[in-house]
Amino acid sequence: MKFSVQQDALLNIVQIASKAVASRTTKNVLLGILLEATENTLTATAYDTELGIQTHIQTTDDNHLLVDEPGSIVLPARYLLEVVKKLPAQSVTCQVHDNYTTDIHSGQVDFHLHGIDAAEFPKLPVFHNAQSIQLSSSDLRNLIRWTHFATSTSEVRPILTGIHLQSSETQITFTATDGLRLGTKSIIYEAPQANVWDAILPAKSLIELLKLISDEEQTISIQFTSSHSLFSLGGTLFYTRLIDGAYPDTTRIVPTVHRTEVIVPHNEFTDAIDRAALIARDRDSNNMIRMEVKDSELVISSSSPEIGNVSESLQVLSQSGEDLMIAFNAKYVLDALKALNQDEVSIHFNGANQAFVLKEHGQEDGLQLISPVLMR
Amino acid sequence: MKFSVQQDALLNIVQIASKAVASRTTKNVLLGILLEATENTLTATAYDTELGIQTHIQTTDDNHLLVDEPGSIVLPARYLLEVVKKLPAQSVTCQVHDNYTTDIHSGQVDFHLHGIDAAEFPKLPVFHNAQSIQLSSSDLRNLIRWTHFATSTSEVRPILTGIHLQSSETQITFTATDGLRLGTKSIIYEAPQANVWDAILPAKSLIELLKLISDEEQTISIQFTSSHSLFSLGGTLFYTRLIDGAYPDTTRIVPTVHRTEVIVPHNEFTDAIDRAALIARDRDSNNMIRMEVKDSELVISSSSPEIGNVSESLQVLSQSGEDLMIAFNAKYVLDALKALNQDEVSIHFNGANQAFVLKEHGQEDGLQLISPVLMR
Repeated sequence: MKFSVQQDALLNIVQIASKAVASRTTKNVLLGILLEATENTLTATAYDTELGIQTHIQTTDDNHLLVDEPGSIVLPARYLLEVVKKLPAQSVTCQVHDNYTTDIHSGQVDFHLHGIDAAEFPKLPVFHNAQSIQLSSSDLRNLIRWTHFATSTSEVRPILTGIHLQSSETQITFTATDGLRLGTKSIIYEAPQANVWDAILPAKSLIELLKLISDEEQTISIQFTSSHSLFSLGGTLFYTRLIDGAYPDTTRIVPTVHRTEVIVPHNEFTDAIDRAALIARDRDSNNMIRMEVKDSELVISSSSPEIGNVSESLQVLSQSGEDLMIAFNAKYVLDALKALNQDEVSIHFNGANQAFVLKEHGQEDGLQLISPVLMR
Repeated sequence: MKFSVQQDALLNIVQIASKAVASRTTKNVLLGILLEATENTLTATAYDTELGIQTHIQTTDDNHLLVDEPGSIVLPARYLLEVVKKLPAQSVTCQVHDNYTTDIHSGQVDFHLHGIDAAEFPKLPVFHNAQSIQLSSSDLRNLIRWTHFATSTSEVRPILTGIHLQSSETQITFTATDGLRLGTKSIIYEAPQANVWDAILPAKSLIELLKLISDEEQTISIQFTSSHSLFSLGGTLFYTRLIDGAYPDTTRIVPTVHRTEVIVPHNEFTDAIDRAALIARDRDSNNMIRMEVKDSELVISSSSPEIGNVSESLQVLSQSGEDLMIAFNAKYVLDALKALNQDEVSIHFNGANQAFVLKEHGQEDGLQLISPVLMR
């Protein structure tokens, strides 16, 4: 293999692929990035066998990609990335020798990195004529941001480390729960054909995917097999394995009625919870804060025997239903509020010992459900 | 004690003082910040008994400081800082009760923090009529930046964890060495009276001091007792203990002659060393890279059996004296180059197995001395 290309273009594809390189493994080849050069295309691939990223560039007037000799090589990601990053902003030539040693040459600089035979690199999952869903990047970003933090980080129930994706002919829904909270969000969607999917995607993978979704609006296509899914974003392919098993039926735990509803300003409410959380950070408090709803006022408070206490009142925009006093994990509410994008938040309670729901006020396509801390 | 003040002004003095709060201690009072209010002044102090910072504000039209009741209290730094940071940008009222509980009040927000009697707070060292040195902030910053990294981090010889300050009537010199490298820098200085000082200041303290020196040019006064020194920067007092003992005589190890001198462009030379260091990062290489000086060219190279190798040539701006091949720790040279402020660097060698010297080209008031790795 031999090619030359501008340093910034090479750095870009190596950086994108590097997010899927294994961090801990005894297999050297999984610590590498596969570079493949064909006629006028350079492809970078990393695949830790859970998560795979493949991206490419084609010759343009900017990147000056010139492939002298098609071929492929696996190079250690850590060094490849650092080397390319530190090369001058000019043309880089890359040439593989018979013993897999690879010259990376630019101006007066000559690196030789020990490579690995590309044949040893694991094969990416194959998607044969799989049907696809098309989503806008902002919708996909929203679905992930709304749910990823509510997944479990414990491997005791691996299914709960994933985000449940369900698609019907009219909408796509992402749902996540760790057993104490739940986030769910739906996007209206007109399927070009009957697409009914049900899959559990690792939250870890989708958090990496989130970083790849650019701010520029684009269409992302998603395909599934029984074991994997593939997201296509422009020139980048993002593969993830699916989590095996049946996701629990979460519709039953979402309350359909409420006894109290308050509407609060997003920022002021977030700031108040954030301040109360300060005093609830020690081990005994475990982030527990209290909230009293009374006469169209919220009183948010917390206390710690060691540190002190805090109390803050906040006028609600509206209250309907009975007063109540409830306790909850401040971190759960702060996480949930981060996902909510509107200036006004509605909170729906069913008494002190029932889970409560946060929504963007007036929006019915998503909700955050949080279990309270039972009051002594 | 009772005072009110704008949140940003309170945050500013608490943040400055917090840099001297003890990080690990069993004495709760050392984890606190002492707040003292007098007629029209609010003072914040932290002192971990090695390093002390005291800063204050006086009433202005901006900060609206109003002291209703003079007094003092020690509050836990970690919580005080976070609480003040998260308060709204408006007036904050602070009031101490008989049991040392302290109300921090702003708008609808009410914090109560458990305080500690100010009488328990350690006393700062006393400087009675001590003579002082005056330095510009840029000179002091330069003296610290030129030396701090060359101190030892090992407590085997505590003296080498300090920076040696020597002042005569005409100049001030900072010197640091860890036994394998040495940085020294002098500033011309006209003493108003005969000031001859010799002191060893903990590098850790001076690194904290560096963060306090603002970009705005100002005069900093330095005072000494036999055990402590005090830096006065505007409204902030910075105290540090001195390290006991006699600093080794370093003048004898600085070579006064050289057999080879090259002048190189600072940026290109730094980039080349930086790239070569990439391949020398593994444990076996221990940052060792090689440099050949030959026919007005430098060839910088490194190799690792596991990773590969790199070689890069660089045209020197001038060479005088004999050719040579030398090996050194790339980190030492990169650290030294960071202290050098000019576009051209002169390097002075005395053969492959003698320490070499880096200077800002044409400047004789500072140097970086580095021991080579002995060539096998």
